Amino acid sequence: MALDRLIKNILEKKNPTVAGLDPKLDYIPDYIKEQAFQEHGCTLEGAAQALLTFNKGLIDALCDIVPAVKPQCAYYEMYGWQGMRALKDTITYAREKGMFVITDGKRNDIGSTMEAYAAAHLGEIQVAGERFAPFGGDALTVNGYLGTDGIAPLLKVCKEKDTGIFVLAKTSNPSSSELQNQEVQGGEPVYLVMGKMCEEWGKELPGKYGYSGVGAVVGATWPEQLAELRKELPHTFFLVPGYGAQGGGAKDVAGAFDEKGLGAVVNSSRALMCAYKKEGCRPEDYAMAARREAIRMRDDIAAAIASV
Amino acid sequence: MALDRLIKNILEKKNPTVAGLDPKLDYIPDYIKEQAFQEHGCTLEGAAQALLTFNKGLIDALCDIVPAVKPQCAYYEMYGWQGMRALKDTITYAREKGMFVITDGKRNDIGSTMEAYAAAHLGEIQVAGERFAPFGGDALTVNGYLGTDGIAPLLKVCKEKDTGIFVLAKTSNPSSSELQNQEVQGGEPVYLVMGKMCEEWGKELPGKYGYSGVGAVVGATWPEQLAELRKELPHTFFLVPGYGAQGGGAKDVAGAFDEKGLGAVVNSSRALMCAYKKEGCRPEDYAMAARREAIRMRDDIAAAIASV
Repeated sequence: MALDRLIKNILEKKNPTVAGLDPKLDYIPDYIKEQAFQEHGCTLEGAAQALLTFNKGLIDALCDIVPAVKPQCAYYEMYGWQGMRALKDTITYAREKGMFVITDGKRNDIGSTMEAYAAAHLGEIQVAGERFAPFGGDALTVNGYLGTDGIAPLLKVCKEKDTGIFVLAKTSNPSSSELQNQEVQGGEPVYLVMGKMCEEWGKELPGKYGYSGVGAVVGATWPEQLAELRKELPHTFFLVPGYGAQGGGAKDVAGAFDEKGLGAVVNSSRALMCAYKKEGCRPEDYAMAARREAIRMRDDIAAAIASV
Repeated sequence: MALDRLIKNILEKKNPTVAGLDPKLDYIPDYIKEQAFQEHGCTLEGAAQALLTFNKGLIDALCDIVPAVKPQCAYYEMYGWQGMRALKDTITYAREKGMFVITDGKRNDIGSTMEAYAAAHLGEIQVAGERFAPFGGDALTVNGYLGTDGIAPLLKVCKEKDTGIFVLAKTSNPSSSELQNQEVQGGEPVYLVMGKMCEEWGKELPGKYGYSGVGAVVGATWPEQLAELRKELPHTFFLVPGYGAQGGGAKDVAGAFDEKGLGAVVNSSRALMCAYKKEGCRPEDYAMAARREAIRMRDDIAAAIASV
């Protein structure tokens, strides 16, 4: 149930990290782009093909050591419906390789509209009796600004399809404080109000490791709030962006974990995708460079958790 | 600049309304679906084709009297990338017919990720020097929970491409109060904090009618807050959902308008799309039934504005 499949993957691989698949064209080695443009022209199809080839290489190189991937919808949507097809194909490929897929869409709406997003990303739809999983991820990031009306439709689908959600609580960016740190009457900041709603919503999706199917997004750039929220939200699993390129280190994320070393999955995107550039190795070795960086990150975070 | 093209359309058509294009399969007449399934099978392609045909009929029937359409992304995304292709084709068709297109995606993210959404929906992207407008709308609804880091990338694109945004402030649903009505220190509710940020962000996109390129979403179901926000946010144009099916009436939305009768555009989706069902007319007349309902709505709202 819930996020249990993710947690099982994390335990098996002894690795609480997720590989962000945010494939900007700039990150993709030229030889992949040239091949894609030769086949499809310098078009949206060509770009989408380059994204998919790049992703498949990363997935092949990471799937036995990294438990999950997190494709960021925006980087697919920016190549139109052709890019969205690459998103679907990426998700399918990663799941075939046993990875848990967190679709990072930050979707939000209400009622039957939110049901449509839930079906699109976590469930199935019917067309004249035929069933389809339009994108088919295992979890979806969502924005809870609209309240329970925007979350309840997801819970229903999550229960039926054994999928989960991550609700934005305290995001990694500097200006997240403008709204999220405003204190409401009683003195609680908005991010904690949102976190407590996650605990409440999560009651409908209990999990066997103690964490519900309603996780929260909390940035690695806010170590104090991470530790505060870990204490306040004992059943809420965290998705932690902001490690690496955005400035969060392993020590910063340690507070996101409980005494058993569970409770969070830490994302890295650019550092993995661009490891070959940083290493200065051959572009053809980009996937193995990502694997080396993934191992370094795994060990870095494991050491920080152990030392707490 | 900004939302001026929308306001110009509203003035020319003397009609401050927008037609929501949320084409659930249930809303679409059988003869359209049967034709689409015959050509493409009972598949996502078939569903997407039915959506597009239905939308084109509505756009043809409405384009000379209604200034804008608002396709809701979720109802396209739920049919996968095939549905997203129908979204793109719907937007292109509506713009060819002179309608202003508000893409209702409630997208949100930060930095270069938000730049990707901005390019996808309001701007252009480059593939090896070739330029493409992936979806090509005139405005996008967005969620401001992440603060300025999530909005600034949009402002840049809006300035370059003469497009605009609508930020969620007070949404139409009952549980919007859970977070949005929480009062922060100083006593202001979260929706007003968000509204004031819209005024601030809007300074970068001034418009010639006094309204900036940063609008706000405020539900017709909250007439008091609509009137309060109209007073507090003199440069922020409102997108008002919740009229009709969700319970808001013409009197309820009157407070969203200024003394010149400007300041808001009121959305109706289901009441237009399903007018043929309510009328009991032939399904083949669905578009003309939508036109009759659009005229009724226009006159209903005009009367309410005039009587204030």
